[in-house]
Order: sequence, then C-alpha cells, then structure tokens
Amino acid sequence: MSVTAPRGFRAAGVVAGLKETGSRDLALVVNDGPSRAAAGVFTRNRVKAAPVLWSEQVLKGGRVHAVVLNSGGANACTGAPGFQDTHATAERVAELLEDSAGEVAVCSTGLIGTRLPMDALLPGVDKAVAELSRGDGGLAAADAIRTTDTVAKISFRHGDGYMIGAMAKGAGMLAPSLATMLCVITTDADLPAASLDRALRAATGVTLERLDADGCMSTNDTVLLMASGASGTVPDEADFTALLTEVCGDLTRQLLVDAEGASKAIAIEVVGAASDFDAVTVGRSIARNNLLKCAIHGEDPNWGRVLSAVGTTEAVFDPDQVNVAINGVWVCRNGSFGDDRDKVDLRPRDVTITVDLSAGPNSATVWTTDLTADYVHENSAYST
Amino acid sequence: MSVTAPRGFRAAGVVAGLKETGSRDLALVVNDGPSRAAAGVFTRNRVKAAPVLWSEQVLKGGRVHAVVLNSGGANACTGAPGFQDTHATAERVAELLEDSAGEVAVCSTGLIGTRLPMDALLPGVDKAVAELSRGDGGLAAADAIRTTDTVAKISFRHGDGYMIGAMAKGAGMLAPSLATMLCVITTDADLPAASLDRALRAATGVTLERLDADGCMSTNDTVLLMASGASGTVPDEADFTALLTEVCGDLTRQLLVDAEGASKAIAIEVVGAASDFDAVTVGRSIARNNLLKCAIHGEDPNWGRVLSAVGTTEAVFDPDQVNVAINGVWVCRNGSFGDDRDKVDLRPRDVTITVDLSAGPNSATVWTTDLTADYVHENSAYST
Repeated sequence: MSVTAPRGFRAAGVVAGLKETGSRDLALVVNDGPSRAAAGVFTRNRVKAAPVLWSEQVLKGGRVHAVVLNSGGANACTGAPGFQDTHATAERVAELLEDSAGEVAVCSTGLIGTRLPMDALLPGVDKAVAELSRGDGGLAAADAIRTTDTVAKISFRHGDGYMIGAMAKGAGMLAPSLATMLCVITTDADLPAASLDRALRAATGVTLERLDADGCMSTNDTVLLMASGASGTVPDEADFTALLTEVCGDLTRQLLVDAEGASKAIAIEVVGAASDFDAVTVGRSIARNNLLKCAIHGEDPNWGRVLSAVGTTEAVFDPDQVNVAINGVWVCRNGSFGDDRDKVDLRPRDVTITVDLSAGPNSATVWTTDLTADYVHENSAYST
Repeated sequence: MSVTAPRGFRAAGVVAGLKETGSRDLALVVNDGPSRAAAGVFTRNRVKAAPVLWSEQVLKGGRVHAVVLNSGGANACTGAPGFQDTHATAERVAELLEDSAGEVAVCSTGLIGTRLPMDALLPGVDKAVAELSRGDGGLAAADAIRTTDTVAKISFRHGDGYMIGAMAKGAGMLAPSLATMLCVITTDADLPAASLDRALRAATGVTLERLDADGCMSTNDTVLLMASGASGTVPDEADFTALLTEVCGDLTRQLLVDAEGASKAIAIEVVGAASDFDAVTVGRSIARNNLLKCAIHGEDPNWGRVLSAVGTTEAVFDPDQVNVAINGVWVCRNGSFGDDRDKVDLRPRDVTITVDLSAGPNSATVWTTDLTADYVHENSAYST
C-alpha cells in the first residue's frame, strides 16, 4: 500500500545498480491527479545536498507531478556537477512523463561527497517509469529507499472520504550510519498547496521533528506531501492535519525502533514548562546528552545526568523545583534525590523519562535512543 | 611541585575514606599570604553543586585563604542538607586555621545526587591540616583530587620574579565518567583580585573552556586562582596573563590526552572566520558531532560529516567556499571533494581538522576526543 494507498498515485522501486549489494536503490512516485498540489519540509542544515536545493525550488511552485528518490549516494557536497546530475535526473523523469522537470522533485541518500553514477541512475529511471503501478509499486518504492533500515517503513490511514499513505527511510537527526530521513506522503484529498503546507508543518513539528537521537542534522532530510485530489473529497483542514499527524507519528515510531545500534527507545516527556519552546528545548538537551544516553544503555537510572542536561538550557525553571521520573519512579524530587532508584526497572526496550519543570502548563515529548558500542562500531566503519 | 611551587602555599592530600578504593580523596591548599587575592570561574550549568554555590559567594569577596577539595562525591542535587555539608566543611577548615569560613572555598567531584559521608570527611579535614606542607603536599593534593584520571595533572611556570603552579583533575565538558574539571592555580605574584579575575577569564577562555569532548556540562566545574604575593613581585598584567595561559594550555593538553575512553586527541582549527565567536561556534559544533567523532575513531577521513556539522551553525560562510583539511590533506575544497582522501593518515593519536570558512580573518582552536566503544562502556556502567 504505502504511497499508492490513496487513489491517483503510481509507484515503482527498481535496481538501478547504485548499491554494491544489488538491492533496489531507485524509487519513483507519480501523481496522476487531477490535482498536483504539494508541500515539503527540508533539512535546516545550511549545507544542503543538490536534490534538496532542487526540490526546494520545485516546491515553491506548490505542485509536484513526480518524485524520484535514490539510495546509494547523497549527492551532497558535490558542487555544480552534482546539481547538474540532479537536474538531469529530473529531466529524464519529465521526458518520460511528457512533462516539465519543474514539477519533478528529487531525493537522494547515502554517502556525502561523491558523485552519483549517472550511467546507472538514468537507465534506472527508465526502468522505474516502465514498472509504475498501483499494486506492488508502493511497497517496492518503500523498499528501494532503504539504506541501513532493517525494514521498510510504511503507513496509511483512512479519513472521511479520503486516504493518506506514506513511506519513509532512515531518520532525520537520528542514529543510523545514513542519517538522512526521506519521507513521501500521499493523499487523494483535494486541498490546495497552502493548506498542505500548514498541515505538513504542524504534523511534522510534533512528530518527525522531535525525533533526535544524536543531534546530527542531515544534509538531505526531506518530507514531501503530494495530493492528487482523486477522491474528490475536500476535508476539513483541522481533521486532515490530525490524520496526517497520526501518519507522521506512526512513521516516527517506526524510525525510532529501527534506529541502528540502539537498544532502547526513549521518550522524554517534559511537563510543567513555561512554554512549548522550553519543553522542546529541555527535551532536546536531554536527548543529546551522551552521558545520560550511555547510562540508559547500562540500565542505570542516573537522574543526575538528566538534571545536569536541564541545567544547560535557558528554560524557565528553579533547580530546586525540578522533578524527574524514570519509568514512573520519581527518583528526583525538588532537585534532590527522591524515591529509591533501585525501584526503576530499565530492562524493557521502551524507556520513559518524565521531567516536571514546575514552571507552567506546557509540555512536549522528544524521542531518542541510547548510545551504544554498536552505534560507535557502525558509524566508525561506514565509509571504509 | 604543583600548587606549592610558588612561595606562600602549603598543601596536603589525604585518605578520608570517601572512596571505596582507599585512595587519597581529600585535598587542601592553604595560602599563607601576605596577600589572599583570588579569582574563580565556575560551571555555567544552572544546576550547580552545593560547593559551587558556596565558592561563588566566597570568591565575590576576592579573597581565599584556603580551598578544600574532595573526590568521591559531587554533593550536587542534594538540596539544603548538601549545602549545609559544604558549609560545615568550610567551617572545619576555618576553625583549624583560626579564621572565618568566608574565605574558604570548597570543591567536590563524584556522583551526583548522594550526600557526602561527613563522618569521614570532617576527620579527613583534620588530617589534611595536620599534614600541610610545601614539600610533598603539592603532589599529594594533585593525587587526592583524581577520580578516573590515570595520572595526576600538574603544571608550573617561572615568570620574571614570580611563579605560577597548578593542579587539575578530570575535564570540564569532557569524556570521563566523572566529567567535572577541578583546577587550582597558585602564584606568588602580587596582583589584586580584579587583575587575577581578568587574567583567569582570558587564559581559561582560550584553553580549558575550549576543551569539549562530549558537550556535557558538569554541575561542579571550578577553576580557582590564588595569589600569595609572597614573591613581592608585581608583574605586568599582560605578561602574567600570557604565563597563566601557558599553564592553562598545559593542563588542557594533559586533560585531553588522559580523557577516558578516547583513542584520539583531536584539534579542530577553524580559520577564515568572520569573528572569534563564529570560529568557536563552528569548532564546538564539530567537536560535538557524534557521527564525525565515530568516523575519526575508525580512522575514516569522513569530511562530509565535518561539513554537515558546520552547516548546523549560524556562522558566516558560503557552503561553496568551505575548505577542510584532515591531518594536512585538503580533502574538501570549495565545499566539494578535494585531494584524495586516501592520502590522509589517521593512525597517529593526534588528529588535526582544519576548517577554512573563507569568511574573514579570525580563528580559534577547539579540542575534543573521538567517540569510542570504551566511552560507552565506561559511562554506562558508572553508578552501578
């Protein structure tokens, strides 16, 4: 199902020969309309891969006819020649679809700093166009964008007279060797680009954007939302946003539990914050604290490391009024030791750290992973 | 030598029984004057240990008669009772020196969130006062503040008619299990507290403050500078600052190479920056990039991870004009691949990453370590 669950979409996933393993490495998703309204969110890294620079321009028009995605190479830090490669890829798709390249988005993922083998990639585009389908295409496309993902990530939801479908790989700002998150979401709802843009920013803001395993921001992160309007349904924007948030939350969870080298899926719930911003800031500072992430890996409820992470932020709080629970045990009360830390059971894969700032009514959840020797091994041996 | 190298200082390092290992765990440094001028810099973490809260107050007076330091417990997140313990420790020192506790600084290092065993600590203070000496006391004190440090860190330099001596442990914002950096610097130069404060901030600003191995900020970091004036020499402030910077640089290097779990000592030189602030910001963003630190551990000159770290900052730069050299090989030129990465020899322990932002005349160096499985093991098994 995945991106072809909603009406109006065809997809394909093929072996272009970019990966040495011989696995699928090129995906194509085509919107057959009648609408082509689209929105996108991209990495905030100022060093942007060529496909990000290209697709940002495409999305400014608010319309996407097709998106072509490749694994096996990020096409980042490749200069003008790399940008020409992206352009040529979009042109090839456009030519075969008898359309303009200006409505063809491009996504790439893989090693930074090397050119893509265009002599393999362009024939791969031809093959993908030939294999476009509604049936198997969605799953094949989800498979083709995998890098170190152990499973393909897909999601779909039924709305009132319309559907949303999605596929994703990797994880933005997450642990895998190939840190890039690519995500394509489709819907047969009929909404204009401006509505899609608002809905996408709202949905990703509380889901995919709050997945933060190692603080590393990719050069290639891209989330695209394409609407075919094929259902004829014009949903209420708030309802659509809620459904889209469910889909993005589902993908976030899938990315979290499949993060490479991780043995724990950690939810950091910050409550009692003076603002949403404070809650997210505190959550991120904890999510990025290597010492704490090591402690959780060792199943050690080391709440002192939580407090020292909170203390590095500018959030509103009084150190003597912060409370911390780990898996439901309030090991820190009023900034000092609380309930017996031996009561904390850290053996399950899922870990919840609750931080009560006692400073207001706002809250947020940030998700992260533990820091493991496997993470080090996988990321130290990557490009060699 | 260490802190007793300059005239006017006595020191001791004793076994109080705070550490289960039975090693020295309590140090005392006494300034016999005639001057007691002093300055201090403390952690910027808003969650501050009791001894930091206490010593900040002491230093506001610009005078320190003695500093007592303990390993085996950080006395952080211990609430009002913990603060009373710090106060009682200072009072005990003051009583034995027949002075007021208001000029006795206190430093602690160890696990956060547990009370100190005062029934062992206070007799330890008595023992330390009894053993104060100029001869062996300096080295014994340096030994007593060690936690996971494999060697005691000391330094001294001769100025024109005066000396500076120092001891340090751990590393502020660095990798060891006990991340706290404690540092005591002594001099027999005769300078007022305001001069010492300016000199200390200038010296630590380009040395100890730029040592950043895991981005984790301790609740206990303290650097104290005490002047006895016993040499009768009033040095030029600029000359004194330069000599002090040498001492702090020497300690920084010792902390870097002894960082636990690290196999590489990495210097990140940022040049061509529009401001010193930009240079330091870019240096820190690279120093905190887990993916890059794993790559260096794997001896993989993965310059793409350098660029993606630079891209997360707000520094002035054009992604197409950034150059990166690793151990002298310019693997990235103008934001794209440069010289052959196979020419980079990453086998030596010392690694230099040079980033040229091509945006101005400013530069800065930040030091860090690689991220290793040993780091994970040591920090996941710490408090259990």
